[in-house]
Amino acid sequence: MKADFILRNIGQLITVAGSDKPRVGKEMSELEILEDAYLAVRDGRILKVAKGEPGEDIIGEGTVIEDARGLTVSPGLVDPHTHLVHGGSRENEFSLKLEGVPYIDILKQGGGILSTVRATKEATHEELYHKAKKSLDTMLGFGMTTVEAKSGYGLDLETEIKQMEVAKRLDEEHPVDIASTFLGAHAVPMEYKRRSDEFVEKVIEMLPVVKERELAEFCDVFCEEGVFSVDQTRRILLEAKKLGYKLKIHADEIVSLGGAELAAEVGAISGDHLMAASDRGIELMAREGVVADILPGTSFNLGKAYAPARKMIDMGVPVALSTDYNPGSCPTENMQFIMQLGSLGLRMTPKEVFTAVTINAAHSIGRAHEIGSLEPGKKADFVVFDAPNLDYIIYHFGISHTKEVYKGGKLVYSNGRVCY
Amino acid sequence: MKADFILRNIGQLITVAGSDKPRVGKEMSELEILEDAYLAVRDGRILKVAKGEPGEDIIGEGTVIEDARGLTVSPGLVDPHTHLVHGGSRENEFSLKLEGVPYIDILKQGGGILSTVRATKEATHEELYHKAKKSLDTMLGFGMTTVEAKSGYGLDLETEIKQMEVAKRLDEEHPVDIASTFLGAHAVPMEYKRRSDEFVEKVIEMLPVVKERELAEFCDVFCEEGVFSVDQTRRILLEAKKLGYKLKIHADEIVSLGGAELAAEVGAISGDHLMAASDRGIELMAREGVVADILPGTSFNLGKAYAPARKMIDMGVPVALSTDYNPGSCPTENMQFIMQLGSLGLRMTPKEVFTAVTINAAHSIGRAHEIGSLEPGKKADFVVFDAPNLDYIIYHFGISHTKEVYKGGKLVYSNGRVCY
Ligand SMILES: [Zn+2]
Ligand SMILES: [Zn+2]
Repeated sequence: MKADFILRNIGQLITVAGSDKPRVGKEMSELEILEDAYLAVRDGRILKVAKGEPGEDIIGEGTVIEDARGLTVSPGLVDPHTHLVHGGSRENEFSLKLEGVPYIDILKQGGGILSTVRATKEATHEELYHKAKKSLDTMLGFGMTTVEAKSGYGLDLETEIKQMEVAKRLDEEHPVDIASTFLGAHAVPMEYKRRSDEFVEKVIEMLPVVKERELAEFCDVFCEEGVFSVDQTRRILLEAKKLGYKLKIHADEIVSLGGAELAAEVGAISGDHLMAASDRGIELMAREGVVADILPGTSFNLGKAYAPARKMIDMGVPVALSTDYNPGSCPTENMQFIMQLGSLGLRMTPKEVFTAVTINAAHSIGRAHEIGSLEPGKKADFVVFDAPNLDYIIYHFGISHTKEVYKGGKLVYSNGRVCY
Repeated sequence: MKADFILRNIGQLITVAGSDKPRVGKEMSELEILEDAYLAVRDGRILKVAKGEPGEDIIGEGTVIEDARGLTVSPGLVDPHTHLVHGGSRENEFSLKLEGVPYIDILKQGGGILSTVRATKEATHEELYHKAKKSLDTMLGFGMTTVEAKSGYGLDLETEIKQMEVAKRLDEEHPVDIASTFLGAHAVPMEYKRRSDEFVEKVIEMLPVVKERELAEFCDVFCEEGVFSVDQTRRILLEAKKLGYKLKIHADEIVSLGGAELAAEVGAISGDHLMAASDRGIELMAREGVVADILPGTSFNLGKAYAPARKMIDMGVPVALSTDYNPGSCPTENMQFIMQLGSLGLRMTPKEVFTAVTINAAHSIGRAHEIGSLEPGKKADFVVFDAPNLDYIIYHFGISHTKEVYKGGKLVYSNGRVCY
C-alpha cells in the first residue's frame, strides 16, 4: 500500500508503541524512540513507522515526502483535563491573591468560581464558542491534538448544555478532537447553600438528559471538603455509571478526603489532582488501574505542593498530566510548560513525561486504541518539534518548541500559525 | 509635525512616562496607563501619546493609521541580563540533575559551565551567530526590543572577542538592540585552578583590548564563593572603571558574600541575582541607586529560593527583572514568563513587574534616555499585546500574549512570526 505522505530523516521519532494498557512503573520510561526514522501516513492514519529510509513498497506517484532532519516527532499531545468552555476571565482577582486575600473571601465578594458561573450564564453560545476556539488554537500550537473539556460553570441544566454544545461544535469544526465531560457537580450554587443534597438530586436528574443528547462521554464530580462529600460523589457517579458514562473524579486536591479510594471503588477511568491522596488511595488506584491525572500547573499557579508523582509511579499507578486549563486556578493552555513542570516540579524524567501526555493521557479518556502512540492503524496525529531530542523539549523551558502539528495526517499548524 | 504612523483606540496604553531616575518604592506601582489612547510615531521615534482621538495636527496625507481596540500596548521589553551568545546546549545534564547529582559532580565530569566554554571555543563565528540569532528571534516574539548580552564562555581573549563580535554583529543586523558586556571573569578556567589570582590579572590584561575594539560597554564579574572573591571582583571592576566601562556584578547568588555591598561601593549600575543579599547590602544599594537585577527564572529552574524583591522594593532599591537566558541555570528566552514569575514567585504586582522590565531595566543598562517608556523623542519600540489589560498579561500565564512588536516604529513581529 502506498503512502499519501511520508516524513523522513526524523532525528528522533518517539513512537510510544506498544501500550494496550496504561503504562506503569518502569514502563513509563521505556519509550520506543527511533533515530533517523520515517513515518508514513495513508488516509489520515499511520501506515508505517521505521528506522532508515522508506522503500518502494510505500512510495507511490502521489506520495508527498518531507524532511525532518534534526527534528523530534512525537504523538499529538493529549490533554485529559480542561475546563475549556467558559465565560470571562479573572485577572481582577490576581492582585487580591497577591495581597494574600484568602480564596474564601474572594468567593464571598462574588468572585472565584461563582463569577465564572455568572459570566458563563450570561455569555451566548457564539461568545463561548469564539473564546474557547481561541484557546483551542493556542493548545494546537503547543502540539495538543485531543483535549478533554468539562462543563461545570452552569450548575443549571440549560447552561451546562450550552457549554457542552459548544464543546460538541468545536469537536466537529476544529481540528482538535474534544472528549466531553459532564461536571454538573463542580460547585454548590449559592441558592443551594446548606442544601447540597438537594443539588445532588438535581444533578442526577440532569444525567439522562445530557446522555440522551449525546453531549458527554464522561461524568466528573468535584469531591472536596466544602464541595461534594465522598457519599454525594459516589451517589452521582453510580447513577452516571448505570447510564453508561465513564467516570472521573476531582479527587483529594486540597484535603485527603478519600477521593482516590472512591475512584478505585467505583471503577473510575481517572482520578484527578490528587495532591493530598493517601497511600491507601494510591494503592487502590494502582490495583484497579485507575489513571492518576496530575495537574502541576495548578500547584505552580497557586504556590501549593505538587502531587506525589514519584510515589505513584513507584506504587504502580499509571500517571497522566493535564493543563487543568481554567480561568481560576490554572489559566494556561501550555501543555509544554506542564511537561516542564512534570520534571521540575514532579521530578518525572522526560521519558516519563512523554508517556504521561501521550499514551497514558489517551487511556485516561478511553481513546488509547485511536491515539496516544504512532503505530500502524492509529490516527496520524503528531507533532514536529524544533528540538534535537526529547530531553531538549523539557530542558529548554518556557517557550514553544512546536514547528508543525499534523492532525489526521493534515498539516494544521506551521511555524507560529494555525493553518487548518 | 505629521506622524508617519498612528496606533489608535488602544485599550490600555502603558506609557511608563516620567522616570529620569530608576523607580523605587511606590513609584514602581505608579505607572501611567492611558485608556482609549493613541500613539504616534515619526522618524522611528515617539511623536505623541495621548488619550482620545488623534487630531489634524499629526494626521497628514502619508500617515498610516492602525487600530488596537481591546489590546494593550507597552514599551518594548528590555532584558538587562542574558548570556545570549554561546555554543552547545546542556539537556544531557537534565536527567542527572533530576536524579539529584550535585552540580559540583557534573562539573567534575566535564559538564556544567566548562562544557559550554568548550562548545563556545569550538564553535565558529557563524555557528554562534545563527544560534544566538534564533534565540533573539524568540526573544523578539516575546516583546523584547533591547537585550543585554554577556561574554564569559571563552575565558581566553580570542573566544571572548569572538562572542562579543557576534553580539556586535547581531546589534547591527538584527532589529533587537544589544547592550554588550565583557564577563571575562565568569569562571576560573581549569588550567588556572588554585591560581585564580593569576587569572584575575589575565582578565585585567584583556580589559583595554576589549575596550579599544569597542566590543563592550559594561564589565561584569561573577562574584561568588569558589569563583571570584570580593577582593578579586573589586580589583577587576576598579580597573575596568578606569577604562570607562560601566560596572555590573553577579552578586550574592548562592552565598551572602558581600557582592551587594561591593556593587554599591564601586558604583555599579546594577547588582544581579541577589538571592542571598544581606540587609546591609540592600541598604547600600538603595543609598547608591544601584539597580537590583533579579532573575527569577533561575530560582524557578533550579528550585531555589527567590530573591527578596518585596524587601528590596520596601527598602527603596530600584528593581529590574531579567531572563538570565543561559544554557545551564536558565535556558529560557521567555520574558513574559519571567514577568509571571515576578508576580507568582517574587510577589510583585503586575504594575511593579512592568516597571521592572521597562524603565528600570533600561536604567540598568544606561539607556533610559532612549528606551523604557513611551514618551515624545524616545525610540518607537513597543509591544502590542493581545490582552485587554496589564493584569491579564501576568494572570494568563505560560503563553505568549504578543500580537505585534514594533522596533523604531517598524513592524518586526506579527501574529506568530518575525517580519523584519
Ligand atoms: Zn478541574
Ligand atoms: Zn548571569
